[in-house]
Amino acid sequence: MKLMSTPKGDGFHLPAEFESKSEGFMIWPQRPDNWRDGGKPVQKVFVELASVLVKYQPMTVLVNESQYKNARSMLPSKIRVLEMSNNDAFVKDTGPLYLINENKDIRCMDFNFNAWGGLLDGLYFPWDKDNEITRKLADLYNQDIYKSDFTLEGCSIVTDGQGTLITTEEVVLSEGRNKGITKLEAENIMKKFLGVEKVIWLPEGFFMDEAGGDVDNVVNFIKPGEVVLSWTEDTTDPQYKISQKAFDILSKAKDAQGRKFIIHKMLLPEKKVVLSKEQANGVDPINGMLPRVEGQRLTATYVNYITLNEVIIIPEFNDVNDQKAKE
Amino acid sequence: MKLMSTPKGDGFHLPAEFESKSEGFMIWPQRPDNWRDGGKPVQKVFVELASVLVKYQPMTVLVNESQYKNARSMLPSKIRVLEMSNNDAFVKDTGPLYLINENKDIRCMDFNFNAWGGLLDGLYFPWDKDNEITRKLADLYNQDIYKSDFTLEGCSIVTDGQGTLITTEEVVLSEGRNKGITKLEAENIMKKFLGVEKVIWLPEGFFMDEAGGDVDNVVNFIKPGEVVLSWTEDTTDPQYKISQKAFDILSKAKDAQGRKFIIHKMLLPEKKVVLSKEQANGVDPINGMLPRVEGQRLTATYVNYITLNEVIIIPEFNDVNDQKAKE
Repeated sequence: MKLMSTPKGDGFHLPAEFESKSEGFMIWPQRPDNWRDGGKPVQKVFVELASVLVKYQPMTVLVNESQYKNARSMLPSKIRVLEMSNNDAFVKDTGPLYLINENKDIRCMDFNFNAWGGLLDGLYFPWDKDNEITRKLADLYNQDIYKSDFTLEGCSIVTDGQGTLITTEEVVLSEGRNKGITKLEAENIMKKFLGVEKVIWLPEGFFMDEAGGDVDNVVNFIKPGEVVLSWTEDTTDPQYKISQKAFDILSKAKDAQGRKFIIHKMLLPEKKVVLSKEQANGVDPINGMLPRVEGQRLTATYVNYITLNEVIIIPEFNDVNDQKAKE
Repeated sequence: MKLMSTPKGDGFHLPAEFESKSEGFMIWPQRPDNWRDGGKPVQKVFVELASVLVKYQPMTVLVNESQYKNARSMLPSKIRVLEMSNNDAFVKDTGPLYLINENKDIRCMDFNFNAWGGLLDGLYFPWDKDNEITRKLADLYNQDIYKSDFTLEGCSIVTDGQGTLITTEEVVLSEGRNKGITKLEAENIMKKFLGVEKVIWLPEGFFMDEAGGDVDNVVNFIKPGEVVLSWTEDTTDPQYKISQKAFDILSKAKDAQGRKFIIHKMLLPEKKVVLSKEQANGVDPINGMLPRVEGQRLTATYVNYITLNEVIIIPEFNDVNDQKAKE
């Protein structure tokens, strides 16, 4: 049921990613203007990832009708495959923000989704199926849902589950998402609909992040009061200044409970991860809104890991810093 | 998971419709060559029916993506709406036959579905989405599934849940479904995959039933050993001989437990239900396989009612026999 009240008023808030969870969702990738070679390589990777995740929690993969049979046949039978129309595979951005209350009841928060920038600088058009996913997933379990016209994706925010939220001005205040909104107005919306009490603003997200400033490639909560921060000592890296600035802000900030942050600097892969010629050429150029050129820098960081109840899934880049990240 | 064993071997069988159930499914109707006026009148009726059913059990309505928003907005929020591609709205024929064992564990039986006759005399083409529905609904609850290439729909069989199954030769042995199969072969398949022990064959289903001989418009189990039978005393009605023949067979038959049947004759509506000119003209003629002409006899009977745990939902035809049927 769509609720007309607010999460804050009803005692619901956004939990931290490190809090316990009961299951996971992925969306099957397929669009050839975003995934190279008709999506075939990434589909294999998604099967591999889902097969790892399902060892620790039930997994459901959502899929467009046109790829249903392929997804069902490629995925192990213990992974549930449900038909759900989508425009692309980013369920962390398009699915519900799950809210909980003291009794661990679950409700869904449905912000507007416009493909990371809508008609101005969104990554594709249309995005209407993606914008329906939260509602459909809420329906799947008969979960109550709150709705706001504010545009916000899951990757734009991280929280400690104790009232603190970190986001970026670049993403939340972007003209393509929430044109003309003030920081104060945005803060009040996030407080009302995510049940947080303090919003910490970083100016920018990861350098060249194509979503335009997502916070989750820059910083992640390990536990309340303690964060990891994407880091580089390479002063020629454009990410250097972004990470420095984030460090300054977080060093001076206090969280919602009045604590100072313990900040762990997490080195980026030492060798910059870039697009190969083969990879660039594998993507259909019909989208036209993104550079897909040989040598282009990719968003490669260790901080955007996946936290499950028992384990952490962390990316590897065949880099000298992989081992440090794991430690 | 798809099982390679058989229900009979695993101790699973098809329960009777009057046994307890936990929820219900419907499929949203929309195709304009089967539902008049673009499906708009029947959609209102489905909303009404689903709204009655949901008073007694959770209800889910499955819908094609193209009608998702319309269905979601027309149906009350307490009814779950899930996207699931389909070719038409007959979930009793296209959904799982749910099997149970002694512990009330549930598994799904997936027979082939070919739109009631395939390329020979099926009612539409293609039917591939309908044939995937059982698998998708099994996936929804991670239910194990048995698969057989035998073509059989839910409306083709009724069972007492105690080993007896009633069906028709017209439907099961039809050339469009199971060409060249013998009665004995068909019986053995049904015994193996539905866990029944005795199959009682009626020659024909309801007169002019467009599905081609479905049994559930002719006979229904009230409880083990006791059935209702569509009946008419009008010797000019083509249904007269069909019902007489069914009565003869059932009168002489014994069920799987060796019981004789108590047979309740259920009079058809006295005034024959026929297609009006307006109704006939409202259906797109693109299908081409069915007569849609003014005055055409419709399959109207009271025996094809819906049994819920607490109530029975029975059709009314504004006929003098409505009251008798209710009694």
